[in-house]
Amino acid sequence: MLAYPDIEAAAARLRGIAHRTPVLTSRTLDAQLGCQVLMKAENLQRMGAFKFRGGYNAVNVLGEAERSRGVIAFSSGNHAQAVALAARLHGCPATIVMPSDAPALKLAATRGYGAEVIVYDRYTQDRAAIAAQLAAERGGALIPPFDHLPVMAGQGTTALELIEDAGPLDALIVCAGGGGLLSGCAVAARHLLPGIEVYGAEPERGNDMQQSLRRGEIVTIEVPRTICDGQQTQAVGRQPFEVIRRLVKDVLTVPDPVVVEAMRFAFERMKIVLEPSGACALAALMQHRERFAGRRVGVTLSGGNIGIERFIALISGAETVD
Amino acid sequence: MLAYPDIEAAAARLRGIAHRTPVLTSRTLDAQLGCQVLMKAENLQRMGAFKFRGGYNAVNVLGEAERSRGVIAFSSGNHAQAVALAARLHGCPATIVMPSDAPALKLAATRGYGAEVIVYDRYTQDRAAIAAQLAAERGGALIPPFDHLPVMAGQGTTALELIEDAGPLDALIVCAGGGGLLSGCAVAARHLLPGIEVYGAEPERGNDMQQSLRRGEIVTIEVPRTICDGQQTQAVGRQPFEVIRRLVKDVLTVPDPVVVEAMRFAFERMKIVLEPSGACALAALMQHRERFAGRRVGVTLSGGNIGIERFIALISGAETVD
Repeated sequence: MLAYPDIEAAAARLRGIAHRTPVLTSRTLDAQLGCQVLMKAENLQRMGAFKFRGGYNAVNVLGEAERSRGVIAFSSGNHAQAVALAARLHGCPATIVMPSDAPALKLAATRGYGAEVIVYDRYTQDRAAIAAQLAAERGGALIPPFDHLPVMAGQGTTALELIEDAGPLDALIVCAGGGGLLSGCAVAARHLLPGIEVYGAEPERGNDMQQSLRRGEIVTIEVPRTICDGQQTQAVGRQPFEVIRRLVKDVLTVPDPVVVEAMRFAFERMKIVLEPSGACALAALMQHRERFAGRRVGVTLSGGNIGIERFIALISGAETVD
Repeated sequence: MLAYPDIEAAAARLRGIAHRTPVLTSRTLDAQLGCQVLMKAENLQRMGAFKFRGGYNAVNVLGEAERSRGVIAFSSGNHAQAVALAARLHGCPATIVMPSDAPALKLAATRGYGAEVIVYDRYTQDRAAIAAQLAAERGGALIPPFDHLPVMAGQGTTALELIEDAGPLDALIVCAGGGGLLSGCAVAARHLLPGIEVYGAEPERGNDMQQSLRRGEIVTIEVPRTICDGQQTQAVGRQPFEVIRRLVKDVLTVPDPVVVEAMRFAFERMKIVLEPSGACALAALMQHRERFAGRRVGVTLSGGNIGIERFIALISGAETVD
């Protein structure tokens, strides 16, 4: 089970390597929402998302010999780039398995960090078989995207830094997909501020974590139809869920149009770029503002990896999932 | 003549009031340009631009009695919002005179800060006459946008903070319009790092400051046709020029398409929003990269006040001045 010393150790490994991202505030937002909002801008992190923290920590904790055989990851999104960059920084080979329909920008970025990218057809090929074959052939270490203690610990440094820089908070809202960031942040926040309320935020149509938390067991759903492509996980990870069920108060859900509203606010008033999943916690605060009235609320802005053309399509309403 | 103690005093006044904006770095940019770039993100400043520093300092240095009669400013852009917000923070009235064709967003934002906005027709009405009448009627203090020592001193705190946070720099490139930011930053930078080379950056079609510096006297030009609406000044201010002629090495010019390229890079790789004038110094570094090869270069990202629709028009090429 993830514990606070794991996060402290990850913070020491990341010092001088990860950006210490700024905590942003907006008096306009505070006035609109009736609370004080402190936002951890992980869109300004290396490779554009908090995923770098977990990927780097997971590669760093491997032994030298293990690392020299290389690392392997499966991801269509930010975790691919995180592991590729972490491997390059450690001078070890990386093999990233990505679906052939992953965005061209993300394929290019992953290759740009020096990783070997293996594409597969997600409709006809079996990911597990590819993984088994790769592991047999190459003997490298597999770095899972969230159900992995070093990944959870690295991602938990997000809340550690936020609280160090912002001071006491009454509540913390964290973007939630597989639960790596949420579980890590919950451990850090509840250790530093035992009275804090920690919430997850997920798209309304992909509310598997809300269902899981309320039922007390992991619920698996169909691949959710949402613009929040970083949160299309079908089920929370087993190890994250062990943390989340104990330390997280509730999971808040958000309709896609409110996510777009949060992206627009971030652009026009805060001058920053958020990808849909990166705006989900801010959108959850907008959607559920009455619950946080008069309080000091921390929010993760978890990523900004979105091409300018897709951003325009979402803002203009040309892209929806309806 | 502006001196370093003026900037130190302004920094003390701004402490806890202005945001200490982050210094951003991008290894991708460093690799592309062949130098190490340290960017002061004043787009994340209060009201979205460095102008807040000058406006606040100028209102703050007024005596209580003078301030109670209110402050007056003429501006179609960020200076209007800066003075309006500074006045509100001091609890004094503000009158802002803006052309009737100023962007609706900026008119609304200025009113949103509690200022009285007086609009005039810039083609048929005389700004100077309006100013004289207002001063006679109301007796308030006029806060000029750049040719004013407290404004220059406040804006110079941008370079002071950048150097405190980034450490030694070989060169500094500053967005230049009327010269308030450039003169303030030159005084701060050359005091802290006597060997630093300070450059201004302006749009190619509005190169009055380059002409003025090279001729050694202030050159006045027609209103320049450029997308950089914050740099459509026709001549550098007298007091800024006294500083610039002594402390600034050269002024670099940039064609509009390179400004758009810098805005796109900032969006896609740095996850931040820059208005055209706010991207001008970064664009100048892109355009003149060979001059800075292998060096540590500071850059001001001076503002991010741009509506999402105009941003899209510029990026898509729908808006140009040709």
